[in-house]
Amino acid sequence: MNNTITTRRQFIKTAGGTALGLLAVGSLTGAAFSCSSNKNQVAAETTQAAAAFPWPYQKIDPTAAAEAAYAAYYTAGCMYGGFEGIISQLREAIGAPYDSFPSTMMGYGGAGVAGWGTLCGALNGVAAAISLVSDPKVRSPLISEVFGWYGNTALPVYKPASPKFEDIPVSTADSQLCHVSVSTWCTKSGFSATSPERAERCAWLTASVVKYTAEVLNAQADGSFAASFVVPESVTGCLSCHGKNGMGNVHNTNQSTCINCHSDLGANHPGG
Amino acid sequence: MNNTITTRRQFIKTAGGTALGLLAVGSLTGAAFSCSSNKNQVAAETTQAAAAFPWPYQKIDPTAAAEAAYAAYYTAGCMYGGFEGIISQLREAIGAPYDSFPSTMMGYGGAGVAGWGTLCGALNGVAAAISLVSDPKVRSPLISEVFGWYGNTALPVYKPASPKFEDIPVSTADSQLCHVSVSTWCTKSGFSATSPERAERCAWLTASVVKYTAEVLNAQADGSFAASFVVPESVTGCLSCHGKNGMGNVHNTNQSTCINCHSDLGANHPGG
Repeated sequence: MNNTITTRRQFIKTAGGTALGLLAVGSLTGAAFSCSSNKNQVAAETTQAAAAFPWPYQKIDPTAAAEAAYAAYYTAGCMYGGFEGIISQLREAIGAPYDSFPSTMMGYGGAGVAGWGTLCGALNGVAAAISLVSDPKVRSPLISEVFGWYGNTALPVYKPASPKFEDIPVSTADSQLCHVSVSTWCTKSGFSATSPERAERCAWLTASVVKYTAEVLNAQADGSFAASFVVPESVTGCLSCHGKNGMGNVHNTNQSTCINCHSDLGANHPGG
Repeated sequence: MNNTITTRRQFIKTAGGTALGLLAVGSLTGAAFSCSSNKNQVAAETTQAAAAFPWPYQKIDPTAAAEAAYAAYYTAGCMYGGFEGIISQLREAIGAPYDSFPSTMMGYGGAGVAGWGTLCGALNGVAAAISLVSDPKVRSPLISEVFGWYGNTALPVYKPASPKFEDIPVSTADSQLCHVSVSTWCTKSGFSATSPERAERCAWLTASVVKYTAEVLNAQADGSFAASFVVPESVTGCLSCHGKNGMGNVHNTNQSTCINCHSDLGANHPGG
């Protein structure tokens, strides 16, 4: 990942009058931008009762966090697993203010939020955890590192100490969306989304995401964090025309892929 | 919305060996499923220091919540605006435990989480707020009502009392994703994603989502909540073949649309 694209405000301009010949909605591109003019401002909700923000972080054991995430997945789902995998370790090590946080609320993000298949719940959970312990000025590079790794890595990579199955196939999602990630895995593995193997895959994946996130947070705590995610060539290829300096005035730097959705480029598009 | 499809575990089976002729990843379907076997279990993190879950709710003024959301958007972005629009009213009315919640953390969800264009931050924020005040058994129907309304409504519908612009165009996202929602609006309105008009649109949209969420939560508090979202015909049409009882063994009930991404049905698909 190039820090410069995640530590500054990112704007997109949409293509008006593009000649791509795509379906009306399918042709839309460009998403990564900030929606706040002063996002680093300490929010007005801070009161005497609230602990100083961000909450304190100290290095945690990535493997212990992954094991906690695996167990938490089977308690209240993937977002809860992602959040609680990290926060349980900090609660145990530090106590207050972590012992007052209502982690149960994070169950809402399961299956891409209440089953809607949007953002992978494990990612939503670790992003929330990163945010809780990070200065708002530095959280985005850390989150982007995890999101980029997730999209480009054959997952899961972490096998729990006491798994329900000995072997779980891996797949590369090329996306951060639950719908795409799970469906890609099901198609590759041959298991249905209703299967206990699929649930186990998501539990291992949640543990994998938490382990990587713990490593990222530990590196940040050490002052040694160096972003490794780079925008894939398949995306930079699109951006060579559709980036903010090219035709169509489209800017979409953070997505790990374009063609998952924009698969129909039309007969008039190069390569279409 | 049909309560029966959001209050039970929702599983998807993916199509193996489909003859749709789609690109490998583009052909994947099916997302809405639960990933927890006992999601309603009170999580193990509850300690003496934590307030009882869910946190107390009392009816709030939807317009006041919308105004708070509009202001919060310009403080720390769309997810913060969505969450804080609701929670600020409860903090003011109830005090503890709301005065200890670190709402600043919700800034992570801006622009589809750190600029990645995934889930609309306003939706992520209100879903988190709904979850904080709801028994896990009832949160999903409430969240689904807001998600369904968002996808099918020309937004924004709420004009703040002191807006930065007098007129903001509306658009129907047909999606819950930031990338699609913003790009649809930019294409329809002619404004770029870098424009102050686009930021104002997202601020009005955040206020609109919070107002609707407050109305949903108030109805739930009154015992009068009745879900109105129904899966669109465009989706039930797809599900007539790809639903869990049809060919391909695919189940994807909650998405408000399929063709935003699955626009290339291939020559061998009916209507392709």
